[in-house]
Formats: sequence, structure tokens, C-alpha cells
Amino acid sequence: MREPYEILKKIKEKKPLVHHITNWVTIYDCANIVRAFGALPVMAHAVEEASEMTKIASTLVLNIGTLTPELVDTMIVAGRQANKKKIPVILDAVGAGATRLRTESTLKILRKIKVDVLKGNAGEIATIAGAEAEVKGVESMGVKGSIQEIACNLARKEKNVVVVTGKEDVITDGKRTYIVKNGHAMMGSIVGTGCMAASVIGAFCGVEKDYAKAAAAALSCFGIAGELAAKKAKGPGTFKEQFYDETYNLDEKKINKMMKIKFEISSERR
Amino acid sequence: MREPYEILKKIKEKKPLVHHITNWVTIYDCANIVRAFGALPVMAHAVEEASEMTKIASTLVLNIGTLTPELVDTMIVAGRQANKKKIPVILDAVGAGATRLRTESTLKILRKIKVDVLKGNAGEIATIAGAEAEVKGVESMGVKGSIQEIACNLARKEKNVVVVTGKEDVITDGKRTYIVKNGHAMMGSIVGTGCMAASVIGAFCGVEKDYAKAAAAALSCFGIAGELAAKKAKGPGTFKEQFYDETYNLDEKKINKMMKIKFEISSERR
Amino acid sequence: MREPYEILKKIKEKKPLVHHITNWVTIYDCANIVRAFGALPVMAHAVEEASEMTKIASTLVLNIGTLTPELVDTMIVAGRQANKKKIPVILDAVGAGATRLRTESTLKILRKIKVDVLKGNAGEIATIAGAEAEVKGVESMGVKGSIQEIACNLARKEKNVVVVTGKEDVITDGKRTYIVKNGHAMMGSIVGTGCMAASVIGAFCGVEKDYAKAAAAALSCFGIAGELAAKKAKGPGTFKEQFYDETYNLDEKKINKMMKIKFEISSERR
Repeated sequence: MREPYEILKKIKEKKPLVHHITNWVTIYDCANIVRAFGALPVMAHAVEEASEMTKIASTLVLNIGTLTPELVDTMIVAGRQANKKKIPVILDAVGAGATRLRTESTLKILRKIKVDVLKGNAGEIATIAGAEAEVKGVESMGVKGSIQEIACNLARKEKNVVVVTGKEDVITDGKRTYIVKNGHAMMGSIVGTGCMAASVIGAFCGVEKDYAKAAAAALSCFGIAGELAAKKAKGPGTFKEQFYDETYNLDEKKINKMMKIKFEISSERR
Repeated sequence: MREPYEILKKIKEKKPLVHHITNWVTIYDCANIVRAFGALPVMAHAVEEASEMTKIASTLVLNIGTLTPELVDTMIVAGRQANKKKIPVILDAVGAGATRLRTESTLKILRKIKVDVLKGNAGEIATIAGAEAEVKGVESMGVKGSIQEIACNLARKEKNVVVVTGKEDVITDGKRTYIVKNGHAMMGSIVGTGCMAASVIGAFCGVEKDYAKAAAAALSCFGIAGELAAKKAKGPGTFKEQFYDETYNLDEKKINKMMKIKFEISSERR
Repeated sequence: MREPYEILKKIKEKKPLVHHITNWVTIYDCANIVRAFGALPVMAHAVEEASEMTKIASTLVLNIGTLTPELVDTMIVAGRQANKKKIPVILDAVGAGATRLRTESTLKILRKIKVDVLKGNAGEIATIAGAEAEVKGVESMGVKGSIQEIACNLARKEKNVVVVTGKEDVITDGKRTYIVKNGHAMMGSIVGTGCMAASVIGAFCGVEKDYAKAAAAALSCFGIAGELAAKKAKGPGTFKEQFYDETYNLDEKKINKMMKIKFEISSERR
């Protein structure tokens, strides 16, 4: 599989515009990581302009990390424009399972628009799928059952790509499943890596129409940058700084040498 | 006094969830410093979920740095839940004294809910106590009278812990007073250390019910990390990066060697 | 021209309060860069306090990066106070041209209050001037005609200073034009340098009443810090950290040796 680097190269050439309606905690890092990968971020959450901004964008990234009902409504307005324009919609279901507002808003968005890539940690995805799970704030505390199977079934139901981030990332469209084993424990020591991952998936999906493949490539590159950064880091401060540098300096050789992506074809059970 | 490290150890074991309703300037750093100390941050400001998020949290941190009247109302809703659940409420009165909205909102919060730890710089705390003070934006420009005495009287009146940050931090419940002499001038060269200090106090109070002791331990550890970081920094950029690393790498030896906490029992004068 | 360092020195002495009503993406960096230059930042966007905060400030910086109509109304309220108090108003027209909301809000602000320094990239300024331009998100993709001429005419029409940032920065009041050639390509590799530049202009205008000269000095110092940082950086992570250090450590010798400011007197053609 040589695709991850090919997709990254395409991002740097085409500079897709990644429109975010996101949270106030990691908004800067979401923008900055998209920039470090070579794409152009824009953040616009006013309902008066969201749809118009989506119209000139290549991807739409929705993130409910600090949602309000009004912001969710704006996400739906922008999402409809993205669906109409056939550009990918990424939804990061931050904290689904922790409060009703988060769970119900996620389900509402899924009902009202086509979400092309639904991303969360194990607890969030299991919650959305209706399985038993515990989410503490924005952290997954555990899930009953196989998260890969849960994700697979959810992807079939939603007819989209489901991404579960964790020690190993699962990316599945219900038939094809990618397992990405890149990444480093240090990534969990800083706030925002989850949100940034969704933004990076957005950038990759902005230039590659096979969204499962694009998401797997995105998480592999993201994880490789994390592994390289961890080698030079002495804590979360130096880690984050190195992480941006390593993202910016990713090249064909590093990616092809370090990527760990396992591919599986699932049987059609439900 | 061996407690600071003992409390820190408990944070790393229990990973208390620290719910913030905070400002948009330092929201990322508040989350990230809580993470670096080993606790779990969550930010949720929608009135539709604030109370529910507080319900699963171990601490509530309120910060009026970029307040609106609606946000203050949400703080009160979440604060009532915290009071009911008997988890600590920390209030950082950012900019009290600079505008009427900030001063009056602080007083409103103090009237409507039980604030367990009220934190500010000298100008902010003096303003709240009704003493003469000048606050320029979010900086204290001077106070008339002894800030320790003002804080002491305020704590007695509010029956809580009052924390005044500055070159020396004063932590008092009106009887017992801790003076923390850790910290470094470089901490004032970056934006956000004040806000982060309140979040760290939140993390410490989440595992230690003696809030005065917890706040003193928090500020001592926070200051030690600052002192260690300053040794390696060449400016505010490298300082901040090192500050996160040093926070993350604090251990028993460093803390017990470097902590500077003076303890006083105040007489009952008013 | 010895002024840039003289103005910087005055900032460090007087510590002007720079009131921002700004966006949620770069709000921290705007505050932090103002601090690194020695001024005091404050962010206050509630309509209930905006005017009062402006009253105690030395400068008002408006930035429409994540605008809403309500926020624009608050900007106008604060702007009126600034005009009344005769402190400088800086407007960063982030994304003007990308959506109608951004273009029309910029024009509305310009109509309702006196903006002393209007800042944008080439596409944004050309859009406001009514010239042909393309803005993709918040990036300028090209302009038809000479941007210096466009800026010059706009400044004459608005009777203010127009600043166009880019590889070379143009600062003009319609008669006098400064071309600043400081800066480094790495500054474009991170999010927020544009917004930070506006905040820095705000700090410089807070102590120097010749706003064209102040803005030129600001962008020269800002660019010099970028050049120095780029020498030590290996990517956007290390660049940003070094950028803060170099800003903080700017001195007379570095500035006078490295500043590249060209001055022109324009003829009165329209």
C-alpha cells in the first residue's frame, strides 16, 4: 500500500480548504495541524455564513466538543450544503455518552445529514451504536463487546465510514476494515490529539474519494508523526512542539518505512 | 509537610474529572495543564448539559475571563449541582474590578452558590472584599492595605478558602493561612498562568477535602514546575514548553526538596 | 529611521492595555504576543462590558475571524467608545471576500465607526476596496491590479491607515507609504501570524500617535522576530516557540541592524 504518501502529496498540491465548525478548546490546534499537513483550514460557525463557507470548501469537519444546540443547528445547515455539493462530512462525536445533549445531538446530526466519516473513541462510538459503554467527560472508560464489530455494524447501518481511535485505530465501511497501529502513548498525554485526528481525516478526505482509505492514511501519517515526535520529547510540552515539526516534515521514505496498516475484508454478518 | 506529593500521587491514581466553565483565551491551556498533572479535564458550557456534566465530575472550575451574563447563569446552574453533590467549586474572578459586569457577576455567583475556593490576584480579591484596588484589564495594579488581612476577612465572611496569587501566594480559610513562595517571574511573561493555577487547584481539591491544604499544595507544585522550567527557558516560548514538561515530570524528590510553604494560624480578629 | 526600537521601548515602559474583540481560533496567541512585546492584553466581548473595558484601554483591536452579527454589533459599541476616547481602532478583516457576512460586516464597521488602521491580506483589502480578488477561507489567492495602489486609494477614501500583509507588507495613509520587507516564509506555515500582526500593530499604536509609522514599526519588529526564529526552527512547532522567545528578546541592536523599511511619498492621484 503506497497510498498514504500519495494522498499526502495531493494535499500539499491541491491545498484543500477544510471548513470546521468545532469546539473552543482545540480550535487552534485543529487549524494548525491542518496547516502543517499542507491544507488550508477555516473556522466559521455563524449560521449566517456557515453554508456559504462550506460552498467554497473541499471538506466539512464537525466537532461537538463544546456544543450548544444553536451550534448543532448550524452544523446541520452546513452539512446539508456539503451533502449537496458532495464534499465529505466528518463528525467527531466528542463526549457522546457523557451527557444527553452530546448523545442526542450526534444522533440528530446523523439523522438530518449524511455524515461520511463518523469518528469517536470506543466509548463514544459504542454509545452511538446503542451498545453499553462508559464515557467520563471526553474519555472512553470501557465498552462491552468487540468495538470492531460494533463499528462495523454501525458503518453498515449508517452506510458510511466509522473511525474508532484508540491504541489501535479501527476504520471501517462495514465491509473493508483498516487497522492502524501507528501512534504513541504520548499522544494521550496532551489535550486535542483526538480533535486534531478528525481534522486530519478531513484534509485527507478532501483529496481522496475513498474515505475509508483516506481516513486510514490520515491516521497512519498522524501516528507516524507522533512516534517520531515521541523520540525527541521529554514531556507533553516538547512532544507537542516536535509533533508539529514531524508532521510538517513527513516524507515518502518515513511514511513507507513506518506505516502499520492492516487491511481486512469482513464477511456480511450483521 | 509531605502532603503536596501525596495529593499529586492521588490525582494520578484517581484521575478526577475537572469540569470547567471557563474563558475562550486560555481554555486549551486550562485543559492541558490539568492533563499534565494527571487529571481529566472536560469543558462544557451549554446550559443544556452543564449540570449533567458536573454530576459526573469531581470538581467544578468557574472562570469569568470572557464572561457573558448567559455564561454566568450557566455557572450558577452547574454550581448548584456541585453544591448538591458536595464536590468543590473553584471560582477564578478574572478581571473583577476592571468592569462592573465582572465585579457584579463575581458577587452574584458568591451569593447564589457556595464557592469553596475563591481565587484572584490582589486587585481582584480586594475588589470583591470591598477594599480599594486597581485592576487594569486582568492585571492587579495595586491594593490599599494588607492583602493577607483582606483575604483572611473575606474567607471568614464567605466561610470558604480565599487564594490570592502573586509573587507570594496567600491561601487562607480565615484561620489557617498558607504562604507559598514557589514560582518564577517568567510565569508572568506568558498569558494564562493565572487561569491554569485555578484549574490545578481544581484538580488538587478533587482528591483532597481540606481545600486550603489542597490549594497550597497545588500552587506549590505549580510554582516548582515554573522554577524548573525557567532554568531551561530562553523566553516565553521555550518557557511554556518546558513548563508542561516539568509539570508532567514532577516527582516526590523534586517536590519535597523545592517546596516553600509557610503555615500560620491567624488570631480571630476581624 | 530609529523609531521602531523607540516605540518598542515605550511599550515596555507604558504597558498599554490592548482590548481585543477577536476570534476563537487565535485568541490565545493574540494575547500572548501582545504580552511578549511588553503590553497588556485583555479580551472582553460581552456587549455588557465591551465599552467599559475600552474606556480603560489604550487600543482597541477588532478581528472578524470567527464573527457573528452580535459580535460585530459589540465591536461597533466598543469602537464608538474608542473613537470618543480617541484611542486607536485596528480592524483585521479576516476572510473578507470569502463570505458575504465577512465582507458586509467589514463595510458596516467602516461605516459606523472610525477605523484608524484597517488590516488584511491582499485579497481581503482588495475586496473591501471593491477591486477584483479571490479569498479562499482566510487566504488571499490573488488580486487584479496593484495592491499598493488599491491600498493607497482605500486609505485616502477612508482617511485612515491601510495595512496589507504579505511577502512585503504595505502600510499607507494614502500619502506616505511604508514597505516592510522583514518576515520569513515559515510565518505562513503556522496559523495565526496574521491575527497576531494586527494585535502587535495595536500595541504599537497604543503608544505612538503616528499610526502609519507605528504599524510599520510593528510589522518590522514582528518580521525580525520571525526571521530570527526561522534560523533556529526545524518546523512549525519549534518555529512558534522560538518566535515567542525572539519577540521577547528583541533589542535595539537586532532591530536597527535587521529592519527593512522602505518609505515613499505618493503623488495625489486618485
